[in-house]
Amino acid sequence: MKIGSYSVSEYVRRVESFHGNVAPGMLIGGIMVDAALERLNPTQLYDAICETHSCLPDAIQLLTPCTVGNGWLHIVDLGRFALTLYEKASGKGVRVFLSMDKTAQWPEVRNWYLKLKPKKEQDPEALRDQILKAGVTLCGFQDVEVLPGFLTKQGKGAIARCPVCGETYPKNHGPVCRGCTDESPYASIGQVSMIR
Amino acid sequence: MKIGSYSVSEYVRRVESFHGNVAPGMLIGGIMVDAALERLNPTQLYDAICETHSCLPDAIQLLTPCTVGNGWLHIVDLGRFALTLYEKASGKGVRVFLSMDKTAQWPEVRNWYLKLKPKKEQDPEALRDQILKAGVTLCGFQDVEVLPGFLTKQGKGAIARCPVCGETYPKNHGPVCRGCTDESPYASIGQVSMIR
Repeated sequence: MKIGSYSVSEYVRRVESFHGNVAPGMLIGGIMVDAALERLNPTQLYDAICETHSCLPDAIQLLTPCTVGNGWLHIVDLGRFALTLYEKASGKGVRVFLSMDKTAQWPEVRNWYLKLKPKKEQDPEALRDQILKAGVTLCGFQDVEVLPGFLTKQGKGAIARCPVCGETYPKNHGPVCRGCTDESPYASIGQVSMIR
Repeated sequence: MKIGSYSVSEYVRRVESFHGNVAPGMLIGGIMVDAALERLNPTQLYDAICETHSCLPDAIQLLTPCTVGNGWLHIVDLGRFALTLYEKASGKGVRVFLSMDKTAQWPEVRNWYLKLKPKKEQDPEALRDQILKAGVTLCGFQDVEVLPGFLTKQGKGAIARCPVCGETYPKNHGPVCRGCTDESPYASIGQVSMIR
């Protein structure tokens, strides 16, 4: 069995190093990404959409050229454990999701996916075994076409200096940067220091 | 010179492999993450906030344990080239930003950062040299405290089955999943196929 170009044990090693632990979502996620890659024309440039923040974006980042920081991985938080790989030219692609119905034969997968048991009562060994045994049969597939907004990279546009904090920001965000509005994630922010 | 635990050339190699190309934002981003790590108590568990989608999240993912998929990297799109590493226990941390004022002495950095020249007229070699020479002197630092919402992991809560698509989603999203509302990124979506 391969996950992307890796053996399962090599993939697990890479997951440990990047994601920190071999979460069930990283195992089934790797299998899902692998299945999407198999169904995509590999000669085409492609982007990814990930429908959840949990685990799956890391499987995509490990197994494809698409990352959050290079703009080829788009996280659209729909709360579904699903991903799409699509051709940049046509917008056509394949969506892979983890099927609730298909977990029926795999009790530990079902317990984990539907949260039927608290985490500490789940059996991580059995869960891992079932994910690897069930593999791609847990997945559903759909041909999709993405909206046009996902086909062109949105540039930042002109740069402005925020009159409040003095930092640069995209002018089209408004008269001040978002960091100086109630979108700020900070309760307090101190004086600026610099190395001279 | 080190970037995280890597030599510059080793970091560059890892950037090529993960991000696809050694973008200027990945170089200065690496230096910024390194500077934040130096100012943080390394015995504490920490999370990251990244204030932009461009490049910087990948520098954080390469140099810290924080990734999008493990939930330790929070991208808050404020459009500022800045990041914060903060202790999970106290919410206190250090914010590092790329200073507009400090780019004044480094014309190629300024051209790139403020988009004063179209990309094809920029000199990538000179830009890279200037970033490596200027290094951490391009950065500003601030002590910050993050809002309480960034201190606890938000669970998904109870899982429901969407009455439209039949997939699982967090019940607190509403009566149907977001994928079956106008938040869907798809123009068209085909029949489900499965492997039996």
